[in-house]
Amino acid sequence: MSMREARRMTIGEFLLRRLTEAGIGHLFGVPGDYNLELLQQLEDHSAMRWVGNCGELNAAYAADGYARLNGMGALLVTNAVGAMSAINGVAGCYAEHVPVVCICGSIPLRSIDRGLGMHHTMADGTWDRFLGAFAQVTAAQARLTPCNAAIEIDRLILTAWREKLPVYLELPSDIAYLDIEVPAEALALEQPPSDPERLRSCITAVSDRLSAATAPAILVDLDVDRFGVAAEVMELAGKMHMPVAASSTAKAVIDETFPQFVGVYNGKASAQQTIEAMQAADCLLCIGYRPIEVTTGDFTVSLPADTIHLRGHSADVGDANYQAVTLAEVLRGVVDAMPWVAGRAIPRPAETTPHAHADSSAKLTQAVYWQAIQNYIRPGDVLLVDNGTSYALFGMQLPPGCTFVGSVNWGSIGYSVAALLGTLTAAPDRRHLLFVGDGSFQQTAQELSTILRHDHTPVIFLINNGGYTIERGYLGRSESYNDIATWAYADLPPVLCPDTTAQSFVARTPAELDRALAAPNDRLIFVESIMDRFDSPDAVTASSNRGAELDYGPRGPQHHDGAQLRPA
Amino acid sequence: MSMREARRMTIGEFLLRRLTEAGIGHLFGVPGDYNLELLQQLEDHSAMRWVGNCGELNAAYAADGYARLNGMGALLVTNAVGAMSAINGVAGCYAEHVPVVCICGSIPLRSIDRGLGMHHTMADGTWDRFLGAFAQVTAAQARLTPCNAAIEIDRLILTAWREKLPVYLELPSDIAYLDIEVPAEALALEQPPSDPERLRSCITAVSDRLSAATAPAILVDLDVDRFGVAAEVMELAGKMHMPVAASSTAKAVIDETFPQFVGVYNGKASAQQTIEAMQAADCLLCIGYRPIEVTTGDFTVSLPADTIHLRGHSADVGDANYQAVTLAEVLRGVVDAMPWVAGRAIPRPAETTPHAHADSSAKLTQAVYWQAIQNYIRPGDVLLVDNGTSYALFGMQLPPGCTFVGSVNWGSIGYSVAALLGTLTAAPDRRHLLFVGDGSFQQTAQELSTILRHDHTPVIFLINNGGYTIERGYLGRSESYNDIATWAYADLPPVLCPDTTAQSFVARTPAELDRALAAPNDRLIFVESIMDRFDSPDAVTASSNRGAELDYGPRGPQHHDGAQLRPA
Repeated sequence: MSMREARRMTIGEFLLRRLTEAGIGHLFGVPGDYNLELLQQLEDHSAMRWVGNCGELNAAYAADGYARLNGMGALLVTNAVGAMSAINGVAGCYAEHVPVVCICGSIPLRSIDRGLGMHHTMADGTWDRFLGAFAQVTAAQARLTPCNAAIEIDRLILTAWREKLPVYLELPSDIAYLDIEVPAEALALEQPPSDPERLRSCITAVSDRLSAATAPAILVDLDVDRFGVAAEVMELAGKMHMPVAASSTAKAVIDETFPQFVGVYNGKASAQQTIEAMQAADCLLCIGYRPIEVTTGDFTVSLPADTIHLRGHSADVGDANYQAVTLAEVLRGVVDAMPWVAGRAIPRPAETTPHAHADSSAKLTQAVYWQAIQNYIRPGDVLLVDNGTSYALFGMQLPPGCTFVGSVNWGSIGYSVAALLGTLTAAPDRRHLLFVGDGSFQQTAQELSTILRHDHTPVIFLINNGGYTIERGYLGRSESYNDIATWAYADLPPVLCPDTTAQSFVARTPAELDRALAAPNDRLIFVESIMDRFDSPDAVTASSNRGAELDYGPRGPQHHDGAQLRPA
Repeated sequence: MSMREARRMTIGEFLLRRLTEAGIGHLFGVPGDYNLELLQQLEDHSAMRWVGNCGELNAAYAADGYARLNGMGALLVTNAVGAMSAINGVAGCYAEHVPVVCICGSIPLRSIDRGLGMHHTMADGTWDRFLGAFAQVTAAQARLTPCNAAIEIDRLILTAWREKLPVYLELPSDIAYLDIEVPAEALALEQPPSDPERLRSCITAVSDRLSAATAPAILVDLDVDRFGVAAEVMELAGKMHMPVAASSTAKAVIDETFPQFVGVYNGKASAQQTIEAMQAADCLLCIGYRPIEVTTGDFTVSLPADTIHLRGHSADVGDANYQAVTLAEVLRGVVDAMPWVAGRAIPRPAETTPHAHADSSAKLTQAVYWQAIQNYIRPGDVLLVDNGTSYALFGMQLPPGCTFVGSVNWGSIGYSVAALLGTLTAAPDRRHLLFVGDGSFQQTAQELSTILRHDHTPVIFLINNGGYTIERGYLGRSESYNDIATWAYADLPPVLCPDTTAQSFVARTPAELDRALAAPNDRLIFVESIMDRFDSPDAVTASSNRGAELDYGPRGPQHHDGAQLRPA
């Protein structure tokens, strides 16, 4: 008979303890009267550090960036106004499979019991609207009560960790200091074990197909990163001598210098060698694959009939569907089951970076810019990429050990600036490079002040090209709706942090860019590069052009003369 | 037999036409690939003006501010990421009863028909999550199709106008250019007429009670503004010689110099004369009354047994509930039915502005600051107030013709900065004054660039006091979680608009504040006033102290030594 150990603790302290046990060392967010009591408990009793943000959406982005490097993240907001400001960032965690706990300090239970109106509500006697909204974009939700807190806190945190998805938790402000009975043992961050027979059967089925194939291959999506199985994938590929490609959503999840790696596979929009390697496959092992138009060259990926789909907790092999099988166990089993295979020829992707010839005093162009960036990137860098012409990075081969933080599925512009705060907080000793356009930067620019306040030293590469150039490739090449306000971006750091040591550069020429790139990384470096609004990497423009066909259909305005920016 | 006239039109043009017919002259928002086609139609075919924002939450706030002065507002966002960024501002419109149409350029119907994954989604084959989230915070929602567009566009716009609530509309990107049959006649912005018998009965019941009362009185909430019946309320009060009080949510809805106006009624937190006038009432006519803790002095408003509740489309009189009666018709009927009543004594509120004695070279204090502001406000000003010590404005008597834009129910910090863009756009010829604290300003600071870009000339009063002083009155008087990054606020305008003519001032003393207040209003004036982080108007601090009792309950940490900022 097992003895369950228990002890007494306040609800707030238990929540903070569980977050800490889940490996979360920093809590992002914005104070509000309904969450101050938990902040006080954090100050008084927790090893966790508070990182206040300028706004709640930024806090969610930061928690996302933090979780990508740390494994889990959390943010604290206030009832309704804070939660609904953060929800886009939390929803992005759902789209991108990032485990984040969104804690909302909510109206007191007293007011719900009595039906009393409170500020930060609809003032109409309803309390569940925000739980309802978050139910659309999170894997689990709960409003804590003294009765359910011990169970719900564990359920939510474990759900987030196991499913790699966000969860939403309301902590009513009048219960954080109440004592409850809680488990004494630490939270076990473990996947539920697979069903033994299902697991054996699944491993056998996958192994049989891979063994029988003449040209097996692997296509990975972002769950390979989220479920931490990149090493197993590479081990399997190495053992079987199979080519591995990645969706753009999984950029750099597989070391891009790994001999079996054949590039980012994006259908017809991929490099020729990648297309050939994937099209040659007679058996394709897809891991977490979630095709969308921009990761498939507009649905030009054709999977072989013999395609295996592995997911976090299930698999499809031929006609059989396997439940209760966890990704790591399946992959481990398949790796162990497979024999070493003598070398197959792996087509290596050609070096795709264009070699632009730069006149060092000419106007800076995108071609020259990205070539310089390619040379700047070092092994181990953390790269954050926002939507826009910075998508040029998808075409580069990255050195080993790089982490690539983007948001291809969700694609919320401005994400990267606040996510940078999160990645810096999670891994302060790595070099972090942010690539962001002016339109994206304007969404979340104030979070630069938090980065400066904490003396972080990333390099921020901002492209100032007068607006939404990626949209000009869809529609409105020269229309004013794609223009934005002109800021003196490089002047912003000292306004947001008057005593900063950050160094700003404005690059209008290759020479000026080179000077910025030569600056030592002992302080924050802000590089504003001014380029033409019609200058865009061809791959980005072509993607926008194709997207317009899907978006607007045959009667759309995209074909009118001059309606679109086109590849050079 | 009636002949319904019809004509053909594209869906996008019809939507824009209906918005124009609803009196909306400006569309706020952020471009995205799923909404560019509607933007192109706006450019090509509409009288409407596009006002691009830095972010979608700001766009929602701007549409809210615009609608408060214009009667209706609208914003355009893109699928999921744009919509979910805006949702907090749209939800605020629900809490504050502001009719705003949130248009989301959404993924093409083609992709839904075919089950194709698209960017800006969860990449999991679900499409209705965002409609579901908006269902929690809007009065009506729809995804347009060629089949339903003519009906749904009218339903949504009319619902917003009639109920003074936000609505949410998804326009799939591939149908905006498709032709449909639409009504030829303009949209009739009218309330449904009341049921004649119910209206007569209701008017009689209300009139009888007011006539029978010895001391009838009126308490107005914000619906008096939203449904445009302030003139009728004043006519009724004048005819019956009744005192009128306003909830703080309805600040300045009734001309505060109107002889029958007795002040903002907030239970025990009100001025003594206001309390006396309201407590003397033996029959209270409440209009749109929605009590919450901060508008009732923490539930210390006690309504007389004979309290009548009028709402936009219903009424409660004694035991009887009336449906199908519209507010304007009920009030008109009651005004017409009542006889002129000889003068009752109306207690006038005392002048409540403290008269601080300022040493012009001493450190600027909140007391001196607000006295100077009281003297600065002119008849006809538009005042925007964010949460914080700026709530001092609720204690001032405003001159005639002022419009007060606040968000007492919803209270989302940062609202005011972007709402200012909206009020400026709706009424560019009035003088607009923004009162905002540093913490609120940091949430939405970038929208200042849009205000500058359009050459608006408001006066922005920013209080730089190092953080969330209003929260220090709840909890964490000296805790770092209530501190924020220090910005050089006054240096921001030229960074966000290098060629601006805006004039910035930093006031550390009364003399420096006076200099700023003497500047002519022919350009944007930005006044950063630096004050102590523990200096707060007593009424604001007392409200926070009381709020902490409700929020944290008897076991909360608010009573610990030094836990709260207290009134001086």
